[in-house]
Amino acid sequence: MEKMKSVYFAAKDKIEVREVNIPEVRPGMVKIKTAYAALCATDVHMVTMGVLGAQPGIPLGHEASGVITELGEGTGDYGYRIGDKVVVAPVAVCGKCPMCKKGLPQYCLQAAPVAAFSEYIVTDISAVYKIPADADLKKYSLVEPSVCTIRAMDLAGIKHGQTVAVSGIGGIGSILLNMVLLAGGARITAIDPVPEKRRLALDMGAEYALDPFHDDLEKRSMEITEGNGFDHVFEVSGSPKAANVCLDLVAHCGKVTYFAVFPPAYEMPLNLYKLYMKEASIQTVFTSHYLFPRAINLIPRVQTEKIIGKVIPLAQALDAFALFQESRYPKILLEC
Amino acid sequence: MEKMKSVYFAAKDKIEVREVNIPEVRPGMVKIKTAYAALCATDVHMVTMGVLGAQPGIPLGHEASGVITELGEGTGDYGYRIGDKVVVAPVAVCGKCPMCKKGLPQYCLQAAPVAAFSEYIVTDISAVYKIPADADLKKYSLVEPSVCTIRAMDLAGIKHGQTVAVSGIGGIGSILLNMVLLAGGARITAIDPVPEKRRLALDMGAEYALDPFHDDLEKRSMEITEGNGFDHVFEVSGSPKAANVCLDLVAHCGKVTYFAVFPPAYEMPLNLYKLYMKEASIQTVFTSHYLFPRAINLIPRVQTEKIIGKVIPLAQALDAFALFQESRYPKILLEC
Amino acid sequence: MEKMKSVYFAAKDKIEVREVNIPEVRPGMVKIKTAYAALCATDVHMVTMGVLGAQPGIPLGHEASGVITELGEGTGDYGYRIGDKVVVAPVAVCGKCPMCKKGLPQYCLQAAPVAAFSEYIVTDISAVYKIPADADLKKYSLVEPSVCTIRAMDLAGIKHGQTVAVSGIGGIGSILLNMVLLAGGARITAIDPVPEKRRLALDMGAEYALDPFHDDLEKRSMEITEGNGFDHVFEVSGSPKAANVCLDLVAHCGKVTYFAVFPPAYEMPLNLYKLYMKEASIQTVFTSHYLFPRAINLIPRVQTEKIIGKVIPLAQALDAFALFQESRYPKILLEC
Amino acid sequence: MEKMKSVYFAAKDKIEVREVNIPEVRPGMVKIKTAYAALCATDVHMVTMGVLGAQPGIPLGHEASGVITELGEGTGDYGYRIGDKVVVAPVAVCGKCPMCKKGLPQYCLQAAPVAAFSEYIVTDISAVYKIPADADLKKYSLVEPSVCTIRAMDLAGIKHGQTVAVSGIGGIGSILLNMVLLAGGARITAIDPVPEKRRLALDMGAEYALDPFHDDLEKRSMEITEGNGFDHVFEVSGSPKAANVCLDLVAHCGKVTYFAVFPPAYEMPLNLYKLYMKEASIQTVFTSHYLFPRAINLIPRVQTEKIIGKVIPLAQALDAFALFQESRYPKILLEC
Repeated sequence: MEKMKSVYFAAKDKIEVREVNIPEVRPGMVKIKTAYAALCATDVHMVTMGVLGAQPGIPLGHEASGVITELGEGTGDYGYRIGDKVVVAPVAVCGKCPMCKKGLPQYCLQAAPVAAFSEYIVTDISAVYKIPADADLKKYSLVEPSVCTIRAMDLAGIKHGQTVAVSGIGGIGSILLNMVLLAGGARITAIDPVPEKRRLALDMGAEYALDPFHDDLEKRSMEITEGNGFDHVFEVSGSPKAANVCLDLVAHCGKVTYFAVFPPAYEMPLNLYKLYMKEASIQTVFTSHYLFPRAINLIPRVQTEKIIGKVIPLAQALDAFALFQESRYPKILLEC
Repeated sequence: MEKMKSVYFAAKDKIEVREVNIPEVRPGMVKIKTAYAALCATDVHMVTMGVLGAQPGIPLGHEASGVITELGEGTGDYGYRIGDKVVVAPVAVCGKCPMCKKGLPQYCLQAAPVAAFSEYIVTDISAVYKIPADADLKKYSLVEPSVCTIRAMDLAGIKHGQTVAVSGIGGIGSILLNMVLLAGGARITAIDPVPEKRRLALDMGAEYALDPFHDDLEKRSMEITEGNGFDHVFEVSGSPKAANVCLDLVAHCGKVTYFAVFPPAYEMPLNLYKLYMKEASIQTVFTSHYLFPRAINLIPRVQTEKIIGKVIPLAQALDAFALFQESRYPKILLEC
Repeated sequence: MEKMKSVYFAAKDKIEVREVNIPEVRPGMVKIKTAYAALCATDVHMVTMGVLGAQPGIPLGHEASGVITELGEGTGDYGYRIGDKVVVAPVAVCGKCPMCKKGLPQYCLQAAPVAAFSEYIVTDISAVYKIPADADLKKYSLVEPSVCTIRAMDLAGIKHGQTVAVSGIGGIGSILLNMVLLAGGARITAIDPVPEKRRLALDMGAEYALDPFHDDLEKRSMEITEGNGFDHVFEVSGSPKAANVCLDLVAHCGKVTYFAVFPPAYEMPLNLYKLYMKEASIQTVFTSHYLFPRAINLIPRVQTEKIIGKVIPLAQALDAFALFQESRYPKILLEC
Repeated sequence: MEKMKSVYFAAKDKIEVREVNIPEVRPGMVKIKTAYAALCATDVHMVTMGVLGAQPGIPLGHEASGVITELGEGTGDYGYRIGDKVVVAPVAVCGKCPMCKKGLPQYCLQAAPVAAFSEYIVTDISAVYKIPADADLKKYSLVEPSVCTIRAMDLAGIKHGQTVAVSGIGGIGSILLNMVLLAGGARITAIDPVPEKRRLALDMGAEYALDPFHDDLEKRSMEITEGNGFDHVFEVSGSPKAANVCLDLVAHCGKVTYFAVFPPAYEMPLNLYKLYMKEASIQTVFTSHYLFPRAINLIPRVQTEKIIGKVIPLAQALDAFALFQESRYPKILLEC
């Protein structure tokens, strides 16, 4: 049986690049030569904190682009051909369980992860989305995180001219900032302790950039918004220290979107009376499969040239993970 | 091979009860002993006007309840057992085509109709929804039209205390009226030329009932709404004569929902300036598969005892169709 | 100068019925002979906890109906006449400050409270809403709390067939339950430790009623919703003990609406990771002036005969407040 | 009494620059030295077609910026000072009539037009909005048309990655295109017969530009959208010839927004069956006063340097109107 390299969650705080069998292309499945797969904080948090119920022994990776190299039986009716450029969803879904039938395939009870940090991805055709024939496979490897941030936009519902702050301009934060810029937000303000990230935010189009370690966030936010607070605040850093202040920055009838995956043990003290006095709301964001076609449409408007910081060969995945944790680059890709 | 009765679209304006083979239960499919299947205006319009692209030679029926009698290979993972009471969607969907992947399975490119006017329904498990073990199968045969009217509610977005008129209190109109009553509508006004239907509407909970042949609809509507017009007007009769007046009855920032399937050749003259002066909008309604679970939840609050007018054996389907066209009964069921 | 009785916030935990001058009817104002004014938990919490920034020395009351007895200069253009039955908003608003100009008059910077627990209300015409000439003034005294609960409906956005739980069936909780019943909710479940209130909820139309002191709320909720949790949970009791469990009862993509005014010092521990895993959201509810016309439209569909528990003369307001705190009656009116 | 120049609707198809008394600054009012006032198609259509019920004898103009020169009695509480830079709404509203009380001041029954094509604007403070002290008064003269196009965005509800076409890239069309670019639209396609306008659209950021006189709009639209049609089509030209084709370009579950003011006598034939098969909807757009603060926030992101084509002194208003009708420049300002 043919072998390939694939990155595994080996044990708590430990990943490995393994040589494994390329899975068989069963009916309904396709085989994809992976081009690029992007690292996501969730990959790291699965390994360090067990988020999303991750257990050692599973392969990792869920943001990838590639090219179809084999079509399984019964996949001919859906418009795919060998050689098509594609991206994948994090999981293949069944379409038949109660969650899928409710329109919530992101919670599919039979979900099968795609294992994107691999030379080949073999998955059900339900997880595969065609991209343009002339697509830059690097650029389109960011479709999946774009999906998640578009989900945030759908749930947050920014209206033109509403003021917006984004806390945390990392890999996903910079993509989310891109979506906010495309959402008609005003006085867009980035919050990040790292100077490079504040610079990146301003360079992408944010109007203000604040340093949470040295700026008085509440005072500056009120100055920027003429005493109103921000209509929308997005917390993308996932740092408990950054969580609570968002509630002080939000305007009357505003919304705080906690986009990040916070540590499972963290409990944020929430003053319901203060929230009530402002009639504010809190939103969290998981994802939705239905957004892939819209994210693919929008990729040309994502500033990927600023967001993709580094491309590293799959074989050096351990280095890539180490580099990721330095959080110097917004997004790191594995070349598979 | 085992045979069963099934109602077919035989030729323009002509249906037949045929004796046909019971389809084979292929992998992924289930076999259902149909209990009740409801007649819908769309069944008739397929035969008389070819709506939804219907061509002679196809079996009819898309609103049904029943009991699972056989589970095909590979259906064991989704929580269904032999003996389960279920309802069906009008079509089984693939979950893999571009429309399904966008979250629009109602426009699935591989849709397979269920053929509900049959003693048995054999269909993909994606089209099957479980209902409570103690469910009244007659009552739950109205799940599918409830889905369509709930779709209308989702798209119309009635808010508590908004005023609402419903034009056409037939089978689907009475179910839509039920949904409007459950939507917080105010001064709910039914419009129908048939006295029995106006009585039904009042009996179900409408506050006013107008006769379009003898009442001055615009004058009466303005009286009922203190000169504002209705925030929502639903046209459910499908009669071109009833279409245009809805635009005169609607309030500033109001919405006219053309729910009915109008004759394909009919073109309504639309004065865009008048619509603009009121900032009004027009909505049409198809359906959405994802609403089945919500419709099943809601069936106990649907006044089916008033809406189901007649139950007729499947073998007498031709009589049922004839009776349907007299439009004396809101809903007619075939006992299969 | 003519005198009238009026209920005042005298000191912490202390109200008084005072004999005060009837305010002068200045230009733009109208004078109303108050008919009925309803007690609200907020009146009590202003006196006991200083909510809404209340300070001793102010008159109380914000839910009232009455009849216009005098029209100030310059009020002739707006369609009001002496003898008109009306209800009032909690405050008159200016229409000119930045909050009003944003469409948020509920946060008007020049708001002037109406002081509804008085024999006469003298207020700006902006706070006055006409009701039908044949209106029952008792029934319509509940327009203002209906406004608040309709605001909750607008913000929560219940969809037909979504499952709903309401925690706390007091005065405002019973009105909110009424609105949920009118919102297409399914498997509507009331939660209250007081047997009379659970009975009231079932009598009004709830399907289930749970006792938080004796039922296992999470277990029962999962049974009622087939393991999904409720799509919407409304917390209306304002009891810190009831706050956190709501987060365990809510479904994937569901919403917890904290409607009640919680004690200003209370901080609820919020696990953001658990909220994220369900993509759930949290909403609070203040109010909106624009909803008065819709609430007036809807009053005929509010079960006021079940909700109004007691009518007590204004002179006995202290007894009424004492009775209120026994929380035996959903709503208590002062006959003014 | 002091005099000023002001542009009047003199007779059908005829405007005049008149020398008139500067109105008295009554209580609640402010006096503004007009800086710039922009021409709008509605000004022209009032004179040529009587839209919005316009009758000869009224002063014109409703898009303007300026500086406060006098504050009337009773305006001190709202935060305005002499010397403040401001913009105005098209009309002052009363805040007390039934439409204002519903939150629809755009339909105020006591609305008083601002007469912006004048050296001075004297109006109620309710019509005045502060802009930043360092604001470019030319740029901010486009706040009012930004409000209208933002209203279109609110009503249309473009979601990130949805495909969008805009028909008609004139003064308001170019501003609307700007808003679409800020709305996360994808494959944004401009449609205009004038080459300069197509160039402008591409220059502003549109991806495609089609010529309705030479391109096959339906064919090209399907190519651009891979056979789906556009999720949103905006008709901004107001030309009856451009109206109907929009319905053919729109996708399943899409929306056609007729933004333009069409000739009052024009009736568009609307095939309800075809609309139903796509579950499409139609929206019109009036305006909303509450959007001024959001439009002011957003002006820095409006490409006014490309949209403002010409600035002409107020005294030459007739030339400006003549030039406007050549439709060579997207927006023409009067320097007042």
